[in-house]
Amino acid sequence: MRSKVRQVLAAALVAGVAASANAQFRKPDDAIKYRQGVMFTMGNHFYSRIGGMVNGRIPFDAKAAADNADLVVVLSRLPWVAFGPGTDQGITDAKPAIWTDTAKFRDLSEKMQAEVLKLQAAARTGDPEALRVAYRATGAACKSCHDQFTTQ
Amino acid sequence: MRSKVRQVLAAALVAGVAASANAQFRKPDDAIKYRQGVMFTMGNHFYSRIGGMVNGRIPFDAKAAADNADLVVVLSRLPWVAFGPGTDQGITDAKPAIWTDTAKFRDLSEKMQAEVLKLQAAARTGDPEALRVAYRATGAACKSCHDQFTTQ
Repeated sequence: MRSKVRQVLAAALVAGVAASANAQFRKPDDAIKYRQGVMFTMGNHFYSRIGGMVNGRIPFDAKAAADNADLVVVLSRLPWVAFGPGTDQGITDAKPAIWTDTAKFRDLSEKMQAEVLKLQAAARTGDPEALRVAYRATGAACKSCHDQFTTQ
Repeated sequence: MRSKVRQVLAAALVAGVAASANAQFRKPDDAIKYRQGVMFTMGNHFYSRIGGMVNGRIPFDAKAAADNADLVVVLSRLPWVAFGPGTDQGITDAKPAIWTDTAKFRDLSEKMQAEVLKLQAAARTGDPEALRVAYRATGAACKSCHDQFTTQ
């Protein structure tokens, strides 16, 4: 019975996400452009802004680190609705495994979002070393998913 | 003297923005992709999510409206650093006037950001009619700048 309830809830959740995705994207290409835009923006603030401080290319600035981490947290929640049906075709680096091994993809996406929250907490301490450690862990979480689920 | 101080401050500000842009973008194409990614993401949350409610394509949801307006506010602050020197060339809809009539471009970008703050305030009231009015005003501010400064 519990399993049946779970199935119904899971189906409702999928239907809800699909309805939301349909309202948000008129066509699959819009979803692809959206997730690419979000990822590029997130990557810029993570690798260039926070990474720039961690790697010494730009001076450490505690407020800028915290602001950029806040932004990365917000952006990290957005792309997932844009991997709906039909968005595996088109100009995309996404591998078909996203739609065949969805549980693994979701797991890695959630791990990334968890690391990003730790990055935010580290940035708020104002300690450059804490930021460095969290930056490395977050970067590893990004890479783990991209290695398995994208062609680049 | 006051004028001289202003000139020095203005020059320092421009230098600071340029330094920030250089640290944020390794090459002009990165800046172009960044501002396009931000604009596409912002446009999606504004036109598809909030506009969907305003135009009756999706049911009004006060919390979703407020969340989406918050996101639009955050995104509305980001693109401007990506219009630095050299980013007028490449795959871009940006017109040269952005770099020759910069004061006007800045003025319109600030008007848009002011309208977006009103949109956020309207969304937080939970009143669909207030949201509709602010949505129209914000859309007009977007259009005004795009009409003058982009080819689409």
